[in-house]
Amino acid sequence: MADEEFVVTPYEVRGHIDYDRLREMFGTQELTPELLARIHHLAGGELHPLLTRGIYYSHRDLAATLDGFANGRPFFVYSGRGPSGPLHTSHLLQFDLCQWFQRKFGVRMTIQITDDEKFWSRGGLSREETVRWGLENLYDILAVGFDPKRTQVFFDSRSIAALYPLAIRVARKIPYSTVKAVFGLEPSANIGWIFYTALQTVPAFWPSWAEGHDVPCLIPCGIDQDPHFRMTRDIAEGLGYPKPALLHSKMVPGLLGPDVVMSTTNAADNALFLNDPPTVVEKKIRQAFTGGRTTVEEQRRLGAVPEICSVWAQWRTRFAESDAKFEQVTRDCRSGALLCGDCKGELIERVHRFYAAHAVAREKAKDWAESAIVTAAPKAL
Amino acid sequence: MADEEFVVTPYEVRGHIDYDRLREMFGTQELTPELLARIHHLAGGELHPLLTRGIYYSHRDLAATLDGFANGRPFFVYSGRGPSGPLHTSHLLQFDLCQWFQRKFGVRMTIQITDDEKFWSRGGLSREETVRWGLENLYDILAVGFDPKRTQVFFDSRSIAALYPLAIRVARKIPYSTVKAVFGLEPSANIGWIFYTALQTVPAFWPSWAEGHDVPCLIPCGIDQDPHFRMTRDIAEGLGYPKPALLHSKMVPGLLGPDVVMSTTNAADNALFLNDPPTVVEKKIRQAFTGGRTTVEEQRRLGAVPEICSVWAQWRTRFAESDAKFEQVTRDCRSGALLCGDCKGELIERVHRFYAAHAVAREKAKDWAESAIVTAAPKAL
Repeated sequence: MADEEFVVTPYEVRGHIDYDRLREMFGTQELTPELLARIHHLAGGELHPLLTRGIYYSHRDLAATLDGFANGRPFFVYSGRGPSGPLHTSHLLQFDLCQWFQRKFGVRMTIQITDDEKFWSRGGLSREETVRWGLENLYDILAVGFDPKRTQVFFDSRSIAALYPLAIRVARKIPYSTVKAVFGLEPSANIGWIFYTALQTVPAFWPSWAEGHDVPCLIPCGIDQDPHFRMTRDIAEGLGYPKPALLHSKMVPGLLGPDVVMSTTNAADNALFLNDPPTVVEKKIRQAFTGGRTTVEEQRRLGAVPEICSVWAQWRTRFAESDAKFEQVTRDCRSGALLCGDCKGELIERVHRFYAAHAVAREKAKDWAESAIVTAAPKAL
Repeated sequence: MADEEFVVTPYEVRGHIDYDRLREMFGTQELTPELLARIHHLAGGELHPLLTRGIYYSHRDLAATLDGFANGRPFFVYSGRGPSGPLHTSHLLQFDLCQWFQRKFGVRMTIQITDDEKFWSRGGLSREETVRWGLENLYDILAVGFDPKRTQVFFDSRSIAALYPLAIRVARKIPYSTVKAVFGLEPSANIGWIFYTALQTVPAFWPSWAEGHDVPCLIPCGIDQDPHFRMTRDIAEGLGYPKPALLHSKMVPGLLGPDVVMSTTNAADNALFLNDPPTVVEKKIRQAFTGGRTTVEEQRRLGAVPEICSVWAQWRTRFAESDAKFEQVTRDCRSGALLCGDCKGELIERVHRFYAAHAVAREKAKDWAESAIVTAAPKAL
């Protein structure tokens, strides 16, 4: 989706994004207070911070999915990752929310690792790299706390026998012209990249296909991934499967702020990678773009602007463990009581603690990651 | 490849084909008497009738493949079938030649059954049908006499785990624009069909990939399949595999003759399907187009014209068991000694005998067909 001021597609996100406008352009529905209240109720009186703090803000067909759940028809949650390098903290957000749904709703989780897609869409990556990052990323994802008994993984190159019989049917429904229009691919794009969207669609239908009855699907994803799943939704009925519901998040701003032009040299400084050592984490946060003023005096007097601050975005999306803490940080930032240096110092500590706990969880995840990868098809047709 | 008078692509063959012209347009090499003599020598003093009688007439890099063989580097033979319905006798020809190479040169054979492709390229076929015909066709192909110990089968939907790791690498080398240009696919073509050519390329490189050293490949195929493998040859070096050699046949004329416009109602009468009962075989041959004259008197006087005769094409490609027999039929046809009715009667008997023997061989092939299907990849990358 391109506009004069911003571009959002699965392969490019650029400019200052007007999220309400984007929602209107994409034709998605607003995640209303009523819907949030409904989730709160079904989750036993709780809401995930990513829902209360406005990171997830848009959806397609969520109400019907919740209605079904309330009437005894559990959905499953599906999300994925294209492995091109180490994950950063913001990559984990959609999985945090998925894990919360799994825990609170007792539902199944499907994770897709698209090592084929990244090889096709990124000229510079080798197969060895996409496979290695696929495994590394998978360990990080499982470490957010998924339940081994209710989690399955499609690692494309290794799960192809499980995916392909259904992918054959899906691919016949998608003309090249649609892929070209939706993703803006050039005629020079390779035929793997063109085919790939069929494989990203398959997991949404897979349980329904495997079990022979409708299993509703909920996909939390960045709003930039909406085009993939719009196509999935378009072909669902023709294949006899339920349309997946979508829950869209805004993109989390990078640490360098909105006005820095990204390049290969500064890209690594724009996010906290999960394999960054503590000194690097500290350095990146210390140099992160904030909504602070030019002088301490001015900041004490006027307060800072959290909405444009990359450090505040980190508190908001992950590191404020409670809504009370998040409100306190926001209030003190706005009032001038909290200076950027102190705020960063406190965040650094939290991030260090998170990394330490994550490392432990990650080692445990390695024990069962292999057994979660689906390698066989449930049936031939 | 389109010309004013004829069209030859993997998805369309139409018009009166000028084979020498086609060879020039495709840029392939002539199968010369010198090359035939070389095959004759390497095969221990024998040539297959399809080689002596001019059905195979063109090639790419065959000389180098024979040189390699003579120097102790055996090639393997690769051919395949897109299963959309029953095979007819002419479908078996390329496999007859493959089997002859396997037997005379002691080499391995790879057979690909493309049940995915036919589902993607033929709108009216169901998955159930392409899979069912895939198996039926496979039994017929194996029944020509392949050696179970030296024959492997890629049945696409069931062998995808074995094919996909290499297909990922192959697909990145093929831009959409090339597929569009080579096959003339429309933007409305589905993305499976577009991707498919990657899978048809994989078996040509598979032994080299699996074994980690160059294994030369020889592909006997109809000249209409040349575009697929031209693309295979184009990308071979970039992937580090040897270019497959090709051996091209002319298309065998249908029973109804060159001037009948094919339709869904008469298509079945144009060929001898392997599942035709004897009465149908007899009926089809009795009504087949010949090079005969309008009256017996005229034919006795002028002789008939074998070159345009569909019955003669049957003798030529399969049913004349020796070159002596073939020459006798041709001579007697041309001289007027042999009338079309008698010629057809004799052919009918031969075809009946062939069908009876084929049915026995087919039952035996069923015993080992399953075990020949490759289902696992030899390595991950």
